[in-house]
Amino acid sequence: MMTVQQVLIDGQWTTSAGTSTFQAVNPKTKEPLPGKYPISPWAEVVRAIEAASRAAAIVRDWSGDRFATFLEKFADRIDARAAELIEIANLETALPVQPRLKDAELPRTSNQLRQAAQAARDGSWTSPTIDSAPNIRSMLRPIGPVVVFGPNNFPYAFNSVAGGDFAAAVAAGNPVIAKGHSSHPGTTRILAEEAQLAATETGMPAGFVQLIYRTSHDDGKRLVSHPAIGASGYTGSRSAGSQLKEAADRVGKPIYLELSSINPIYILPGAIRERCAALAEQFASSCLMGVGQFCTNPGLVVVQAGAESEDWIRQVAERFQAAPVGTLLGPSVQNHLEAGVQTLVAHGATIVTGGASGGGAGYCCQNTLLRVTGTKFIASPAALQTEAFGNASLVVVVDSEAEFISVTQALEGNLTGCLYTANDGSDDSLYDQIAPILRQKVGRLLNDKMPTGVAVVSAMNHGGPFPATGHPGFTAVGIPASLKRFAMLQCYDGVRPHRLPAMLADKSPHSALWRMIDGKLMQGDVPAAK
Amino acid sequence: MMTVQQVLIDGQWTTSAGTSTFQAVNPKTKEPLPGKYPISPWAEVVRAIEAASRAAAIVRDWSGDRFATFLEKFADRIDARAAELIEIANLETALPVQPRLKDAELPRTSNQLRQAAQAARDGSWTSPTIDSAPNIRSMLRPIGPVVVFGPNNFPYAFNSVAGGDFAAAVAAGNPVIAKGHSSHPGTTRILAEEAQLAATETGMPAGFVQLIYRTSHDDGKRLVSHPAIGASGYTGSRSAGSQLKEAADRVGKPIYLELSSINPIYILPGAIRERCAALAEQFASSCLMGVGQFCTNPGLVVVQAGAESEDWIRQVAERFQAAPVGTLLGPSVQNHLEAGVQTLVAHGATIVTGGASGGGAGYCCQNTLLRVTGTKFIASPAALQTEAFGNASLVVVVDSEAEFISVTQALEGNLTGCLYTANDGSDDSLYDQIAPILRQKVGRLLNDKMPTGVAVVSAMNHGGPFPATGHPGFTAVGIPASLKRFAMLQCYDGVRPHRLPAMLADKSPHSALWRMIDGKLMQGDVPAAK
Repeated sequence: MMTVQQVLIDGQWTTSAGTSTFQAVNPKTKEPLPGKYPISPWAEVVRAIEAASRAAAIVRDWSGDRFATFLEKFADRIDARAAELIEIANLETALPVQPRLKDAELPRTSNQLRQAAQAARDGSWTSPTIDSAPNIRSMLRPIGPVVVFGPNNFPYAFNSVAGGDFAAAVAAGNPVIAKGHSSHPGTTRILAEEAQLAATETGMPAGFVQLIYRTSHDDGKRLVSHPAIGASGYTGSRSAGSQLKEAADRVGKPIYLELSSINPIYILPGAIRERCAALAEQFASSCLMGVGQFCTNPGLVVVQAGAESEDWIRQVAERFQAAPVGTLLGPSVQNHLEAGVQTLVAHGATIVTGGASGGGAGYCCQNTLLRVTGTKFIASPAALQTEAFGNASLVVVVDSEAEFISVTQALEGNLTGCLYTANDGSDDSLYDQIAPILRQKVGRLLNDKMPTGVAVVSAMNHGGPFPATGHPGFTAVGIPASLKRFAMLQCYDGVRPHRLPAMLADKSPHSALWRMIDGKLMQGDVPAAK
Repeated sequence: MMTVQQVLIDGQWTTSAGTSTFQAVNPKTKEPLPGKYPISPWAEVVRAIEAASRAAAIVRDWSGDRFATFLEKFADRIDARAAELIEIANLETALPVQPRLKDAELPRTSNQLRQAAQAARDGSWTSPTIDSAPNIRSMLRPIGPVVVFGPNNFPYAFNSVAGGDFAAAVAAGNPVIAKGHSSHPGTTRILAEEAQLAATETGMPAGFVQLIYRTSHDDGKRLVSHPAIGASGYTGSRSAGSQLKEAADRVGKPIYLELSSINPIYILPGAIRERCAALAEQFASSCLMGVGQFCTNPGLVVVQAGAESEDWIRQVAERFQAAPVGTLLGPSVQNHLEAGVQTLVAHGATIVTGGASGGGAGYCCQNTLLRVTGTKFIASPAALQTEAFGNASLVVVVDSEAEFISVTQALEGNLTGCLYTANDGSDDSLYDQIAPILRQKVGRLLNDKMPTGVAVVSAMNHGGPFPATGHPGFTAVGIPASLKRFAMLQCYDGVRPHRLPAMLADKSPHSALWRMIDGKLMQGDVPAAK
């Protein structure tokens, strides 16, 4: 009998009380991978919540430096165990070792942890604000234990126990309860092992980092709405996420969700005239990169009817046909992709190329390009915005400038929106009509580049209006902004000086800290009263 | 037949299409006041939404200076029409002319508008962030038309068309659809008249400021969840607010709510020993100020059992009996207050003084002090935290330090929490046990002062965990922080320079603007690449 892997609760790797288990599947072979993982019952989840609460109470007044030290140690440990992490993630996800796992995602992940550490150490992201005359002071402080639900498509960079939400929650001073994704439990286990070792080495309390692999959907809802939980982060499917959102919203618990995004691309007529082949190449490679399994995958492209656009579509189709068919992350991704394509077809889209399952190893579908007229899109905008997550995209062919506008007005919220325009200025008037409408519907507006590739820089916004996320004011990528999600605003009114957090004391805890003092942004101590 | 007042839609005072009307009531006489006000049907609300959308599109790229000019002109106009505003608000709310309406609330209101104008002009609150090498830039920008629901208890400072939410939404660059409170429509009408005149004088588009007086509850839900609405602000009862919250949450529309807060006060044993009479006086006057009709009214006070606390309770009761009974804002306030007191009694509280309706002019209840043991409080924590909005407070008498902790753990989220401690340090160890728990449950923690009196300063937090508000990261008072509620994060990735907002251009639009450029907070232009 195969051993069941242990859960990480209250500082200990512990045998789960759960009686049912699951196994990961190798998407390339469709064979189960070694290792059984437990489904945690509610009582076990409660033990994790209680341990996280105790940990939160212990670390509440710690300086950012302590969280930074943990994050940096953890990053070093991940890098040191790279070979094993790459091997298992490749088996569990079928994502290629190079360049994806080894050269891109793993370095990004440890880099994110180090960037978060820097932000924690600096602390300026907490916006310390002091009005000295009335002695009122405020700043963003830890919100409480954070639950992170990781998605299937980034085994490291969005992993519940090592990814962007984890880094942000910890840098903001919160314990994390990680809920791993069932498709890559082995990767998650190794990351959690290293997190726990780093936590021990750096003196973090038991329960600061915890991991469960799976719960029932109902227990997930109870978890995000539990009184002792501060906030949750979720990246995944719209249906499961919407249920968690409803449960958390009902009791006013912040939950940050990344649900669904088709990332519209506009290729305006002048751009197609100027650089048809280059744009076909850029679009096809962005669509098929990672088998299309990116949150920012361009699932919708809008072009104007005409011979040049037909030529562009033909060139894209040729590239789709010529490109190898990649392996999808698992059976549910394949099922959803097939269902998505069927929904699009049922509402008037036609298949340009692909459309059937198979064509590659393991779970896979042919590289699929669909098309639909602007008129039909406007008639069924909700159905034709169904996210077909994977290597499929829909071209909307509009017959007028007015239809460009109508299609844009019919769009839901998205993470990104891109506009390609001619270099000679011939598209500028159309750009000026579309961009203001698109701007309000997307978190990130791009010019002349594809949305895949999310740079981890301060100005990045990986967010956007619902259903892309649950609140358009926040980003999941981009440090320090992403930390703000896991903080609450705490004001101290007339509080005696020795009881203030160090960041709000008259004397600044370190010279680099920016604070708003009596209406002026400054570094250093509170100036002596005149 | 009495003329029905007009609604302000799309830049025009217009006869409402509504067929039903309401009248305000003078709370002191219980007589209806002159003036009939319409209940707007859904089609009229849609006209307002459409006009607001057009206005939003027009002002989208305007500089903060234009919104500032409007806000300042409006503030001047309010001050100039003070006499009329004070007369009508006094009739509609029974709040005293002096000091409340004339010396406190009206100056606060025009001051808030001017502070918001300054923040709009400066623009640093938008956190412009530029990463120059990858050419990725982001900032907070207008979220779209904002709906503001004003409460009954601040006819000016939280008024839907002139108060804090209005000022913040406009300063952030958004049109406002104001939904007035039915208890003071005449005050709201005058404020809207001045807002519209200021808007015309300063070149704001039609539909930038609009007013409807009332809708059905269902239409309110449709309004906050309408696709063209950016966000909503609501201050009022928990039951109505929860319904709006659910409707907005379902479609991912931000809604900022201030729902319910009983603002716990702890008077620790040493403090009572040191200054019993002074604390009885402070508490009684904070409780009865404005007939207890403040969001930050201290509705719950926790003391330790013993002779000194009994003396304190007796002294508070004497002051409650000696103080005149004020007039409540209206019949529903009286009904809710009576029902609240009944709920407390039904769950084990006993009446120390008051408890009956009457005792003053118009709608009123006796100044009411209740008490309950810590044990009973912990047994029915939800019921014994029922907000009895008005001149009533509940004393929880605990019998041990442990019970102080248990009571604190049982608290829901609140706007404020206060701890009074001895000056000789004898309460410090108990403070250190209670404060960390209380800290996570309140937006503003106070020492040795009552929570009534919300200073409009940058460091203020008028917010807190649910049910105090809907999200503990935001404040409704305190500029510029309150503006962030009505903004979305917009990122520009590779966008051509001439298409960027001025605040994100290489050249800074004005020398005072703070921007994060390549990881450094600075004023001035983007430094030339090395």
